[in-house]
Amino acid sequence: MLNRVRSAVAHLVSSGGTPSQRPKSPDLPNATSATPAPPETPKSPLARPGSEVWVPPKTAETRASFSRPTFLQLSPGGLRRADDHAGRAVQSPPDTGRRLPWSTGYAEVINAGKSRHNEDQACCEVVYVESRRSGTGASKEPTRNQGLCFYYWGLFDGHAGGGAAEMASRLLHRHIREQLKDLVEILQDPLPPPLCLQSTPGTPGFSDPSHLVSPQAYWSPQKEVTHESLVIGAIENAFQLMDEQMARERRGHQVEGGCCALVVVYLLGKMYVANAGDSRAIIIRNGEIIPMSREFTPETERQRLQLLGFLKPELLGSEFTHLEFPRRVQPKELGKRMLYRDQNMTGWAYKKIELEDLRFPLVCGEGKKARVMATIGVTRGLGDHNLKVCSSTLAIKPFLSCFPEVRVYDLTQYEHCPDDVLVLGTDGLWDVTNDCEVAATVDRVLSAHEPNDPSRYTALAQALVLGARGIPRDRGWRLPNNKLGSGDDISVFVIPLGGPGSYS
Amino acid sequence: MLNRVRSAVAHLVSSGGTPSQRPKSPDLPNATSATPAPPETPKSPLARPGSEVWVPPKTAETRASFSRPTFLQLSPGGLRRADDHAGRAVQSPPDTGRRLPWSTGYAEVINAGKSRHNEDQACCEVVYVESRRSGTGASKEPTRNQGLCFYYWGLFDGHAGGGAAEMASRLLHRHIREQLKDLVEILQDPLPPPLCLQSTPGTPGFSDPSHLVSPQAYWSPQKEVTHESLVIGAIENAFQLMDEQMARERRGHQVEGGCCALVVVYLLGKMYVANAGDSRAIIIRNGEIIPMSREFTPETERQRLQLLGFLKPELLGSEFTHLEFPRRVQPKELGKRMLYRDQNMTGWAYKKIELEDLRFPLVCGEGKKARVMATIGVTRGLGDHNLKVCSSTLAIKPFLSCFPEVRVYDLTQYEHCPDDVLVLGTDGLWDVTNDCEVAATVDRVLSAHEPNDPSRYTALAQALVLGARGIPRDRGWRLPNNKLGSGDDISVFVIPLGGPGSYS
Repeated sequence: MLNRVRSAVAHLVSSGGTPSQRPKSPDLPNATSATPAPPETPKSPLARPGSEVWVPPKTAETRASFSRPTFLQLSPGGLRRADDHAGRAVQSPPDTGRRLPWSTGYAEVINAGKSRHNEDQACCEVVYVESRRSGTGASKEPTRNQGLCFYYWGLFDGHAGGGAAEMASRLLHRHIREQLKDLVEILQDPLPPPLCLQSTPGTPGFSDPSHLVSPQAYWSPQKEVTHESLVIGAIENAFQLMDEQMARERRGHQVEGGCCALVVVYLLGKMYVANAGDSRAIIIRNGEIIPMSREFTPETERQRLQLLGFLKPELLGSEFTHLEFPRRVQPKELGKRMLYRDQNMTGWAYKKIELEDLRFPLVCGEGKKARVMATIGVTRGLGDHNLKVCSSTLAIKPFLSCFPEVRVYDLTQYEHCPDDVLVLGTDGLWDVTNDCEVAATVDRVLSAHEPNDPSRYTALAQALVLGARGIPRDRGWRLPNNKLGSGDDISVFVIPLGGPGSYS
Repeated sequence: MLNRVRSAVAHLVSSGGTPSQRPKSPDLPNATSATPAPPETPKSPLARPGSEVWVPPKTAETRASFSRPTFLQLSPGGLRRADDHAGRAVQSPPDTGRRLPWSTGYAEVINAGKSRHNEDQACCEVVYVESRRSGTGASKEPTRNQGLCFYYWGLFDGHAGGGAAEMASRLLHRHIREQLKDLVEILQDPLPPPLCLQSTPGTPGFSDPSHLVSPQAYWSPQKEVTHESLVIGAIENAFQLMDEQMARERRGHQVEGGCCALVVVYLLGKMYVANAGDSRAIIIRNGEIIPMSREFTPETERQRLQLLGFLKPELLGSEFTHLEFPRRVQPKELGKRMLYRDQNMTGWAYKKIELEDLRFPLVCGEGKKARVMATIGVTRGLGDHNLKVCSSTLAIKPFLSCFPEVRVYDLTQYEHCPDDVLVLGTDGLWDVTNDCEVAATVDRVLSAHEPNDPSRYTALAQALVLGARGIPRDRGWRLPNNKLGSGDDISVFVIPLGGPGSYS
């Protein structure tokens, strides 16, 4: 994530002067001292979320001070090439016949030098969910106790260090599994979920045969809750538990910085796309673009941030104002009237400038330069528990949300052809391209490969990454139109929806 | 608005028993003692918003204890017929040749008995905006100081009394005018609005010829603010000032209850549709439906309400919980696990029931029965400053927002035919019909009239109201499909977008 945490202008908070060199906040972990973590996932599953301490995996051969996704199967030499900012070689899983689930395509490339290592991480897994206990209430057949399987893809775009992204890439799917363990029988039961379970899971008598009958409908008929909304709730709570685990363990285990998280869960015929941050997911189906996420930035979440600052002014200290102005207010403008907007407004109006309007605005800047408290450019994600405003003790975390927005795509509702794909990309991709250009690349690359060629999705992921990176020319990475390519880490998954993958 | 404020279940808050007769909260003004207000608008314009006290207009002939829109030109006999719950005669402006601006169609009908009088109100005006002062900064030509005109339509759906709706119907457009007075020259200047004005309006030296040059772009280039966003800001602030005026004057002038507000401002080629409540606006253009508003209810605003309850628990007292459950939790369910969702969740999950989960949920019920604090069914609007939870001192107003969502439709971007219309309706219309049925009625009625027949829009408004009211049959008002018609007040504006109205 390029420049997503920037403290360049934070000194203006109290001084009102002109920008200087970027000072390094003592509270921001140094991006150059990333967690030593070899490319091996820990083997032991989390028994209960929150009860297990994460230990960064160690092997005898700690070959590098950074890690890449295990499915890349990088040798020590490959790892060095993946870490080379000058070459920026595109990385994909080796074409060995052992492919990612669903023949998923993947490609990544390191940034052009903005941080020492690639701070993106990725995960692709098939996860088996065993029921927490036989008979969780919905099934009346005690013998029916098969587990569930879900397919999982995750992109994690780290900032201010690689620790949070790496931890999330190794553990978030396990938190999801833990949340789903209580729901195994309920999700397999065609009846609506029980509103109330008779006792805690893992104890006998958990079953509630009368769960569909409201004992006494007090104010109105009870609300209907769908299986789908239980999976959404499980994913939402998994994100929160992941974030809480980062908070607990950040001191002992170098969980540096924070990360955006974009994950896809395929379960019982549906794709659940959960996004917290500024990565993006789109489906291309028969050439049509279906957005499957939206970005969470200081601009898109301005009103949520301002409302929080308004309701909890102590979070702003005496340094920030929750009001937004179109540019920094100057002391000499006291008493004049300037455009502003508050937490309730989408339009602008004039107000007379008062002393406290000279404070730094909670939300400032536009586009990729938009910032919360002059520091961070994304407003949802995991981690960032240590993040402070530069030269201040003000915490930024209260303004960040770890909760994703979850969108659901029902695969059973459509006939899919091999060219229909779900594309996930970190902002390194989307900063220099758009949905339409990606759809055009999808069409171009897939039509150049046989529909039954399983390597076509990797070829597509590589083409997307290369198209966003560009080639070295004129002292920079440049696109064919001579504009600058993305200097950020770029990571892309291409998930075929009707391809050779067998997922039903 | 049918049953939008209901205290029927509020007694459950502390008792947990079954519903009884609806107790009347002493804090809810009695709907049967509405403001005496003859159908004459006050003549004196508001000099400054907030500085003028609203006096309900009096005439020598105070003919009835309620009022209807002046443009209906109702005689005393007509007023009695408009107030007759048994006949429910549809009311429209008389076909005298003096029509509403743009040949706007309008029709209304009183409720079937849920309140003594029709608590809907309507307004349709052409409003001239004089500049607050010559030279507000944008124009460098002191001679150019023409005012602006805007067209205005408003529907106000009252609850718990008719006072708020009536006050808003008489004054809200004046607040909008006041807000626009500062913008007259700025909106007529093709240059972007100045970010900062040198001095307060009404004083010399207000002009700022250098307004487009940022003296020092501190953190980034300044944000561009459009003329359109200034108009949106003016409307937003007018709603707030209207609400504040109601708060100030409610004791002296019987400003009872509250109201939803749906208003349209046509200014400089654009329609601004501002909605606070559960009325609805749609455009039908060439048969296509374009939604121009969304409804604000406890369901659509659940997360905003829950967040506020979570951040300010004192607003909930010891009686409410910010958590949502699919039905009321019973004391015997303590320790069991029940579905819930909090302010961050769109999905559901199970939680162990604790003592404070037995409190009444801040948001409960579904559809038209959804309520905030078991009391009110809309979450945005004007007024309601006295509204309390039944048998409690807890105020509900902090959870209500007076801010509208404003959507903009640029009339100059499309060619419109005489059958293209903007339809505004209170929830009395939309409770029993939907966008598609309304579009079908638009097509049916307008094609039965000549395109240049100016009465066709009134005929359409009448058809829409009649179609939602139904006819008396089988002990009720029934639709052709034998379902119940709307027993609520119903009010409809039909605004032609390309009809005989000359608005350019």
